[in-house]
Amino acid sequence: MRILLIGASGAVGSAVCDALAGRHEVVSAGRSHGDHRVDVTSDASVEALFAATGQVDAIVCTTGGMHFGPLATMRPSDFDVGLQGKLLGQIRVALIGQQALANGGSVTLTSGIDEPILHAVNASAVNAGVEGFVRAAAMELPRGLRINAVSPTVMTESLPVYGPFFPGFESVPAARVALAYVRSVEGPQTGRVYRVWQ
Amino acid sequence: MRILLIGASGAVGSAVCDALAGRHEVVSAGRSHGDHRVDVTSDASVEALFAATGQVDAIVCTTGGMHFGPLATMRPSDFDVGLQGKLLGQIRVALIGQQALANGGSVTLTSGIDEPILHAVNASAVNAGVEGFVRAAAMELPRGLRINAVSPTVMTESLPVYGPFFPGFESVPAARVALAYVRSVEGPQTGRVYRVWQ
Repeated sequence: MRILLIGASGAVGSAVCDALAGRHEVVSAGRSHGDHRVDVTSDASVEALFAATGQVDAIVCTTGGMHFGPLATMRPSDFDVGLQGKLLGQIRVALIGQQALANGGSVTLTSGIDEPILHAVNASAVNAGVEGFVRAAAMELPRGLRINAVSPTVMTESLPVYGPFFPGFESVPAARVALAYVRSVEGPQTGRVYRVWQ
Repeated sequence: MRILLIGASGAVGSAVCDALAGRHEVVSAGRSHGDHRVDVTSDASVEALFAATGQVDAIVCTTGGMHFGPLATMRPSDFDVGLQGKLLGQIRVALIGQQALANGGSVTLTSGIDEPILHAVNASAVNAGVEGFVRAAAMELPRGLRINAVSPTVMTESLPVYGPFFPGFESVPAARVALAYVRSVEGPQTGRVYRVWQ
């Protein structure tokens, strides 16, 4: 397969790249790294990406910003960071990218563990929104196209940075998270959320 | 209690008003009806609303726009209608309104049935996002403040308009939907989603 991986240089994306690159052609994209540069908050940038890649068999998205901070002082504009970033950013890739998919192709988006953690109201809403989109979009895609999401908990490799936000959570190795993306890309399912939590 | 009801003239809001008004002081607000005018997509408008109401014991939100249409032709800007309307609009009310709540007060937002229906990918994402926010925000609210969501299916009174979008769905009377809001406002729970589906 020819697979477009957006966010390929991130902690999740690089593990997904490792898992897919042996058997597939991975076309990487990112804000500042990869075969192509893309800003998922811009229609023009995402359209230019697909004009450059041409047809692909799968789109994998492991990117998008969110806001972390206490509810008490959060502003609506803070909250919109995640809505425009990880939520609409990934959905923009799906909406524009659906036309670039070969028959039977797939989209795989990234949500996140839905055990709420402190100072992460934005993440909780964004991740749930990604999953709501995937459940509904799966029913409308034509030509055997599929769409799924992967919902990872904190990764073992990310514990030095994110560990303090996940007290008592069992981490999972990045390579296990990557397996869920492989299952979405190479398996037959659609409208699924693959939870990789323990 | 003194209860601010935003969206009081809508199909859900007017039923909620009927259910609460007998025992409480209901202050109504809406885009074009009610005691106060408010545009929930504007920080300034929501701040002006709470400056006008002063302290309240409960905030109930039954408002916010969404986009309905086929996935195949949906643009990111279409999708953003629901993100800015029903999702961030209600969350804006919660973020700004938390400061106006008396100790032990509550916020009740509106999501919707999470059985996906055709041409409603925006609604599926928005409703899931509202619920994700409520689950996480409940953990951070101080002073005994609470936050819940009500998730109604199609209402019997709305079948003439929305019935065709809900084939085979059991409708519920608006008065039953309103009970869930009463339960959120007068009950002890927080972080709950009250599903009124059949």
